[in-house]
Amino acid sequence: MRLLAYEDATTERALGVSADGRTFHSVASLAPDLPSNISGLLGLDGALGRLGSLLAAAGPGRPLSAVRLRPFLGRSNALWALALNFKTHIAETGLTTSLEYPHLFLRIASSYVGSGEALLAPPESVARAFDYEGELGVVIGKPGRHIPVERALDHVAGYTIVNEGSVREYQIHNRQFGLGKNFEASGSYGPWMMTADEFGDPAKQSLETRVNGVVRQRSGLDDLLVSVAETVAYLSQGYRLHPGDMIAMGTPGALPPAEDDVEGRDLSSQYGPFKTPGLVHMRPGDRVEVEISGLGVLSNPVVADKPANYRVG
Amino acid sequence: MRLLAYEDATTERALGVSADGRTFHSVASLAPDLPSNISGLLGLDGALGRLGSLLAAAGPGRPLSAVRLRPFLGRSNALWALALNFKTHIAETGLTTSLEYPHLFLRIASSYVGSGEALLAPPESVARAFDYEGELGVVIGKPGRHIPVERALDHVAGYTIVNEGSVREYQIHNRQFGLGKNFEASGSYGPWMMTADEFGDPAKQSLETRVNGVVRQRSGLDDLLVSVAETVAYLSQGYRLHPGDMIAMGTPGALPPAEDDVEGRDLSSQYGPFKTPGLVHMRPGDRVEVEISGLGVLSNPVVADKPANYRVG
Repeated sequence: MRLLAYEDATTERALGVSADGRTFHSVASLAPDLPSNISGLLGLDGALGRLGSLLAAAGPGRPLSAVRLRPFLGRSNALWALALNFKTHIAETGLTTSLEYPHLFLRIASSYVGSGEALLAPPESVARAFDYEGELGVVIGKPGRHIPVERALDHVAGYTIVNEGSVREYQIHNRQFGLGKNFEASGSYGPWMMTADEFGDPAKQSLETRVNGVVRQRSGLDDLLVSVAETVAYLSQGYRLHPGDMIAMGTPGALPPAEDDVEGRDLSSQYGPFKTPGLVHMRPGDRVEVEISGLGVLSNPVVADKPANYRVG
Repeated sequence: MRLLAYEDATTERALGVSADGRTFHSVASLAPDLPSNISGLLGLDGALGRLGSLLAAAGPGRPLSAVRLRPFLGRSNALWALALNFKTHIAETGLTTSLEYPHLFLRIASSYVGSGEALLAPPESVARAFDYEGELGVVIGKPGRHIPVERALDHVAGYTIVNEGSVREYQIHNRQFGLGKNFEASGSYGPWMMTADEFGDPAKQSLETRVNGVVRQRSGLDDLLVSVAETVAYLSQGYRLHPGDMIAMGTPGALPPAEDDVEGRDLSSQYGPFKTPGLVHMRPGDRVEVEISGLGVLSNPVVADKPANYRVG
């Protein structure tokens, strides 16, 4: 089952469920007594199972194409992300990481949009190295602390797709990533969360990132330095997991450019310290897609951020 | 004027205002039409001014000692913090930082408690270097992006006191601080926000951190590497400031131990890589106070975290 958030002309932001990824029912119509917020729903034992049964028995749903998808997590307690968790990305950056502990940082809810919504490319006067990072997103269901690694996956409600968009110039202004990972609407996740029972073992799936249809990242999800279970268990040593938290599991490296890929060969168009063949930046007018096999496609247009629109007072 | 959050036997969590820091009125009793949440209140032009007038005209208030203070920001959009923003702290850690850009990272709301509430010391099996960091907290009022530095202070609603408690072993597990700055109930802020007009220029004030009455940090607030205005302006280049955000401005170094300070001289009792004369860790049974002149005292007991209490499922 897929869990999602949507809005349309009459609904501001509501949760929906979909069996096929093409049609959906609102959670409120299937089970009016269930919580209408994602953390309440994920934190309620048995709620997803009940929704699955109700969905299986329901009539034809509404087409997803008739609504606008939104980030389904809202303002989570914590949106964690891992740096340098694929060997191919470690190699291309030349950076170091611990081989023993996950390399964790935080993102703010307002740094993410939903599938189909616009990613904001910073003005060139602010930054130019605005980069995609295709990632697997892990959504927490059951809360807890001090979770042993062998029970960590019991606390995962499902999985989603993340474009962990990053502004490289700001990311390297200092030793903590800080603002570079938290530009307004610089990343996205979606289009939905697929429940863990349906998605199965992430290590058996693969990820692909495309910019304007050209494949820029492709990797199996079995190549993680620190696994999902290890990361969940580690976090829980100090942090109480909350239903509706997300962990973005890190991005693989760039693919080498294809024979006819002019853009992916032109390193002079790349800004910042990391010039990698096959890497291109996200620019206004681009369409960026991240696909995870068995899960779906996260797709976003890139538009120019206009500073004048955001000045207040 | 001081703005705070409290609870008692009949009120779960409400906002209050105080003129003297000893008695208070609830916001709801003074102005029932004002928003009851902090971001709504801080984001409403003129609301603090109106509350100030109402408070000045109000009769005797209720004693603050009759209620329990809570973290007044709730689940903010963003709780930023600066690393290595005092020369004395840079020197004692031997770490490097940019002299040009603020060294920013994020904390989660659940990593903070209010004044008077218990800080949780991790079990010794998890970590032992649980350290105080006395800091000035900046609370954002007016939202905005792309704010020029000369207008940045217009976006500050007021100031508070922060104990940016840190678990050193986890902080150095990898290059991003990650979990080490986000243990459950490892830090605190409060007891209130003092409005910017009343507090005046932070650079004219000083900070002191005491553990069990012994002064462990003391510094003027004029020694910041990156100023409040510069940090607000920098953040707004990519991040839209939200009413109710906080920025913890970084901590000064440890004071050298006094003649009769046995604990502050015993470096062998310090864990982790940074062994500094005068530094002691926070341990169960301690009382930690951070005072900023003209602002107040943030005071917290330290209690032992019990893993068994937090295991769920």
